[in-house]
Amino acid sequence: MSDNAELLGYKAKEAFDASQLLESTQRSNALLAIRDELQHRKEEVYAANERDLKEAATLVEQGKLSAPSMRRLALNNDTKFNGIIQSLEEIASLDDPNDKISYAVELDDELELYRVACPIGVLLVIFESRPEVVVNVAALSIKSGNAAILKGGKESKHTSQILNSVIQEALKSRTQLLPHLIQTINTRDEVSSLLHLDKYIDLVVPRGGKALVQSIKENSRIPVMGHADGICSVYVDQFADLNKAVRVVVDSKTDYPSVCNATETLLLHRSQLSNLDTIALALLKNKNPVTMHCDQTSFENISKDVHQQFSSQLLLSTDTDYHTEWLDYEISVKVVDSINEAIVHVNTHGSHHTDCIVTENSTNKNTWMKGVGSAGCYVNVSTRFADGFRYGFGAEFGVATGKTHARGPVGLEGLVIYKYILRSIADNGHIVGEFGEGGKSFTHNAITDNRQPWY
Amino acid sequence: MSDNAELLGYKAKEAFDASQLLESTQRSNALLAIRDELQHRKEEVYAANERDLKEAATLVEQGKLSAPSMRRLALNNDTKFNGIIQSLEEIASLDDPNDKISYAVELDDELELYRVACPIGVLLVIFESRPEVVVNVAALSIKSGNAAILKGGKESKHTSQILNSVIQEALKSRTQLLPHLIQTINTRDEVSSLLHLDKYIDLVVPRGGKALVQSIKENSRIPVMGHADGICSVYVDQFADLNKAVRVVVDSKTDYPSVCNATETLLLHRSQLSNLDTIALALLKNKNPVTMHCDQTSFENISKDVHQQFSSQLLLSTDTDYHTEWLDYEISVKVVDSINEAIVHVNTHGSHHTDCIVTENSTNKNTWMKGVGSAGCYVNVSTRFADGFRYGFGAEFGVATGKTHARGPVGLEGLVIYKYILRSIADNGHIVGEFGEGGKSFTHNAITDNRQPWY
Repeated sequence: MSDNAELLGYKAKEAFDASQLLESTQRSNALLAIRDELQHRKEEVYAANERDLKEAATLVEQGKLSAPSMRRLALNNDTKFNGIIQSLEEIASLDDPNDKISYAVELDDELELYRVACPIGVLLVIFESRPEVVVNVAALSIKSGNAAILKGGKESKHTSQILNSVIQEALKSRTQLLPHLIQTINTRDEVSSLLHLDKYIDLVVPRGGKALVQSIKENSRIPVMGHADGICSVYVDQFADLNKAVRVVVDSKTDYPSVCNATETLLLHRSQLSNLDTIALALLKNKNPVTMHCDQTSFENISKDVHQQFSSQLLLSTDTDYHTEWLDYEISVKVVDSINEAIVHVNTHGSHHTDCIVTENSTNKNTWMKGVGSAGCYVNVSTRFADGFRYGFGAEFGVATGKTHARGPVGLEGLVIYKYILRSIADNGHIVGEFGEGGKSFTHNAITDNRQPWY
Repeated sequence: MSDNAELLGYKAKEAFDASQLLESTQRSNALLAIRDELQHRKEEVYAANERDLKEAATLVEQGKLSAPSMRRLALNNDTKFNGIIQSLEEIASLDDPNDKISYAVELDDELELYRVACPIGVLLVIFESRPEVVVNVAALSIKSGNAAILKGGKESKHTSQILNSVIQEALKSRTQLLPHLIQTINTRDEVSSLLHLDKYIDLVVPRGGKALVQSIKENSRIPVMGHADGICSVYVDQFADLNKAVRVVVDSKTDYPSVCNATETLLLHRSQLSNLDTIALALLKNKNPVTMHCDQTSFENISKDVHQQFSSQLLLSTDTDYHTEWLDYEISVKVVDSINEAIVHVNTHGSHHTDCIVTENSTNKNTWMKGVGSAGCYVNVSTRFADGFRYGFGAEFGVATGKTHARGPVGLEGLVIYKYILRSIADNGHIVGEFGEGGKSFTHNAITDNRQPWY
């Protein structure tokens, strides 16, 4: 265990615990303080970012970093910078997800139980080299009442350091929150040590590739929330409307293929083979032409003309294709004999992210919504809608495909949990010894007025 | 990876997925079918249990098993048996926790988003040698729509096997649920293999000692829900009512000390030292006399008379005492200078289970409820109230002290999660390409009528 990790964890928990006693307005004000401090130190941020970009350019020349990765590093232009400023203001203005009551019942006269939303605690968030994520994750953590330890990519280290100093300075000078409510680290070694500190850290959120997420799940004693990959599917049912099918398949695949809510697999009911050419041509002739990895049946049922014209885009699939997140203009295609076969495919090959049925049949709509275990079960809608902003959350912390705590797009609500508050307002307090055989019984009367546990 | 574990996991997931397409009445009927089958095979259950008891008696003679552990094995009497029968009927009659809608919003005309409660999936539940837990956990898993793999103590293996066969037979003959929706295993080896099968298993619930829970957290890639220990505290504040303090402290400690919601630590504000004798005597002279592990200050402030009379029950504490779950008539005592010091003590030494303040001061009530991070934050109430039945859940699956998913007493609601259902009812379906710059905007109109996603 590195001493540094221990100290980071300790200070984060200390800052979290202390923050719980402050008014929630402190948290929104903190975001505006960060905004002001950022604007004040804009030139410093740009300078640090240019250092990162210069070092990255060398790495790109050496073939050690991709050009798109370098582009994602950039934070030295007003478009991006103002985006961050605006996002701070938007997050500050969102509803506080805490203190909401989800269960309220009297256990006895003058004995009230409330289940109240409260922050989770200390979050460890690991992400790629996009420096604006530092500010975004810090803002969402602060707003939701949590503390956070952030680990960005090492390529953005100078920018991250300045942003961290901006955030801590704003907290210190303009709020009562402790500055180490947000801390930033730069090395993987610290992460490995932190993954064992379940006494300080409550949740790990990896936002990165499949390998990162799997390695963290393998090594963490702390709960992990995230998604390893996004293998979304569209199933064109026997009772599909062809127009909807074409629109939904094309949009799901081609609107923005490099993100997790893009579709990777097209499942087709056997009765739709007569429409396969229409759907295939919409993909093959798209302005960004799609390569189709077809199973034997679909391959054979694409007409000769289409095969001849698009031979380079029509391939026979392999088994691994159906477990592949293409993140590009490529799609796996499989023919199924029933909606049940489609559901089994999705539940075993998909990643529980978002899966859509195209159908006009009510029974099949219900079957899909019930049978598919994914975080998003869609009917006649592009999978690309799976997004926190589109869902109306006002902000997105990440996407989760697990089956506990929070799943799908995660906004502020996914960063809170609850506690039970039980209070006696009786003259004698309440003890259990008075209940049970020959004693009092529990009333379990729902509290239906707007009573609050607070004084 | 053992082939047996792989097969268990596969069959559990298969049974879970298939069960999602059935009506929820199937699940309640399944519990009544299990009840009938149990009654039908009662003699067989008793015979198997007597085999376990006989083997256990030998172990007790050899000093390899404790007498209380052997007593917990017993299921060969009508009191216990009828308790199981009654509990099946009660769980069958509880509300279905699924299908409840927690978020409903229109993203656009004819585009509806619903967040709907749904089962988690396959649960792996590991528990001690109390055979009735097999039926209870199976019933709660079935009722909540989940599948479960159960691992009980090896001492109860014959009883568990019969109960497992009763459950599977009932599912097979009287419902459309697949019999391996519930499976029972008996060896630890299978558990270790199962902990890596995150492709089949969604949640691990260890219900056992601290060592078991820690070892599972250390070795599992699957989310773990449970509690390692129950170090609950009562803090007697500067503004405490002495009568309430005595009642709450005594009940919290002595009502039933061997369970996780019994109090292990008494924190006392310095200004209460003048009342220390009164509180101490109530514990020392209890019909089950309590041993007090006192810090230097409290030790010195207990009067000479009391020291003389109860010298064997008054000990100086060590640091580890404050991390100790006594589970007996023993309590750690510590004097603090402020409510904040008490909160820091609870947040760092406690187990986030249940902690109570005794006070008449409103500000301090709020400070406690906000500052303490435990699943239960109590005011003038015995910690012994922390229980699913007392909370009105109708059933308890376990207690969780983590800070994600479900915490505190866990009933049926803690066994469900949610999925997002997005459905277009527009003639063209809905695609993302029509939104954004120059296109449509999201409306995010709350759906306030009782519209359902189902057809």
